[in-house]
Amino acid sequence: MTDLPHKPLPLDGHTVFFVSDGTGITAETFGHSVLTQFDLRFKQIRLPFIDNIDKAHDACKKINEAFAEKGLRPIVFSTLVRADFAKIIRQAHGVHMDLIQTFVEPLEQELGVKSTHTVGRSHNTADTQAYRNRIEAINFSLAHDDGQSHKNLSTADVILVGVSRSGKTPTSLYLAMQFGIKAANYPLIPEDFERGKLPSALYAFKGKIFGLTIAPERLSEIRNERRPGSKYAALENCRYEVNEAEAMMKRENIRWLSSTAKSIEEISTTILQEMKTDVEINW
Amino acid sequence: MTDLPHKPLPLDGHTVFFVSDGTGITAETFGHSVLTQFDLRFKQIRLPFIDNIDKAHDACKKINEAFAEKGLRPIVFSTLVRADFAKIIRQAHGVHMDLIQTFVEPLEQELGVKSTHTVGRSHNTADTQAYRNRIEAINFSLAHDDGQSHKNLSTADVILVGVSRSGKTPTSLYLAMQFGIKAANYPLIPEDFERGKLPSALYAFKGKIFGLTIAPERLSEIRNERRPGSKYAALENCRYEVNEAEAMMKRENIRWLSSTAKSIEEISTTILQEMKTDVEINW
Repeated sequence: MTDLPHKPLPLDGHTVFFVSDGTGITAETFGHSVLTQFDLRFKQIRLPFIDNIDKAHDACKKINEAFAEKGLRPIVFSTLVRADFAKIIRQAHGVHMDLIQTFVEPLEQELGVKSTHTVGRSHNTADTQAYRNRIEAINFSLAHDDGQSHKNLSTADVILVGVSRSGKTPTSLYLAMQFGIKAANYPLIPEDFERGKLPSALYAFKGKIFGLTIAPERLSEIRNERRPGSKYAALENCRYEVNEAEAMMKRENIRWLSSTAKSIEEISTTILQEMKTDVEINW
Repeated sequence: MTDLPHKPLPLDGHTVFFVSDGTGITAETFGHSVLTQFDLRFKQIRLPFIDNIDKAHDACKKINEAFAEKGLRPIVFSTLVRADFAKIIRQAHGVHMDLIQTFVEPLEQELGVKSTHTVGRSHNTADTQAYRNRIEAINFSLAHDDGQSHKNLSTADVILVGVSRSGKTPTSLYLAMQFGIKAANYPLIPEDFERGKLPSALYAFKGKIFGLTIAPERLSEIRNERRPGSKYAALENCRYEVNEAEAMMKRENIRWLSSTAKSIEEISTTILQEMKTDVEINW
């Protein structure tokens, strides 16, 4: 693996808390979006499942202890649905970023209805159809990883193709886990290039195919981590495979993008946009 | 699959937009947390990658069109780092839930430094070490799914055990994808129960083992979806396996939880808490 430039950021004295009556994943995801806007590192503490008064008081105490220790107000990102729990947390000496309370009230006014203030309602709840669809999509994507199975390809939402190690597997799993998309993936291999045709199982589903490509230099790096010094990883071979795969995708009129500088989140979001899959946002 | 009670919620007339200069996943995740507090459904539109002035004006136009069509102000969840883009969006007729702008300014004051206002800085960025760790964790978890490999178990952060279909695989993948945790998983099978011992490869790593169990009734349902009418899926057999697995986990002093009513997000967060894995929150 190429070493990335690694300049450690200065450690800031403020402790950061993520407080939630659920998993805290929303608070944490959002908190990171905001904190990465500062060139600082922070000590970070998760306080999930704060779902009764005692736990709320305990969380309040922990925040105050961090304040006493550092002499700086901790930064508190919270997603607490219950106003009474949120009130207890706000009594702590902290800088409060109270996500739910900040936005629910203006929404109540606009919608003209009261919110239910029910804990555990988010997509993280196991007993909804949407959740079961996500689990089904994960199982589908795993069963259809790397061209393992041709069964039920007709029920796939997307079929990713690309050379080995172009990013198909993590993207398929992310599409399934985040969006409930059934994503199969098929490798394009030298035999396909010699035949000059896509794997034959795919022709019936051309409208669902999306291609991933990757810079040969990056591909060679990734493959060398797996099989150092192999022909498979050699730059010349990677150039050949990538050229052939791109030529095939052009010829077959397949939409594609380069995964080289993109995260699985960026690749997945782009695929959803490009495919214009009318995927219901169904949480 | 058991049919869940499915009472369709009334469709509200407000259109919901998720606007971001990145993938919009933070805006969407957060927006859903808030919207699920209302017993309403909404038409939802993603506008990711709004990263130049033209796209910002275009997004503004789309929001205004939804307003003109419905006569109700659209609800706009946005995570825009650039203040100039955020200003353009705010000119649209909408109820603006501007996540970054709302919280960055108070943070700047508290921290005494200016934010960088840099687009694409979140965990969704491919060129950070933290991102590469997540991809490495996904590859590790896939290679160590279902007891496939004993190799490199010493580098696992967590090893999940439990009967077949107790939720080990999706949990392992979620731990890897969300938290960059290397999670192996091992099935507990009838042969293990007869021997009365854990799979022998695991004894060297007992401190990392975490168990999943599940209500036999739910297990039987899940297995019947896969292999209807099989002995594998029979309630009596599920009862036997779950009893044996729980007895073994007690005997071996393994921490465990029931996945029956929990989502993979809840299971994963609980495991992190219980294991007290000093996992750096390292985005």
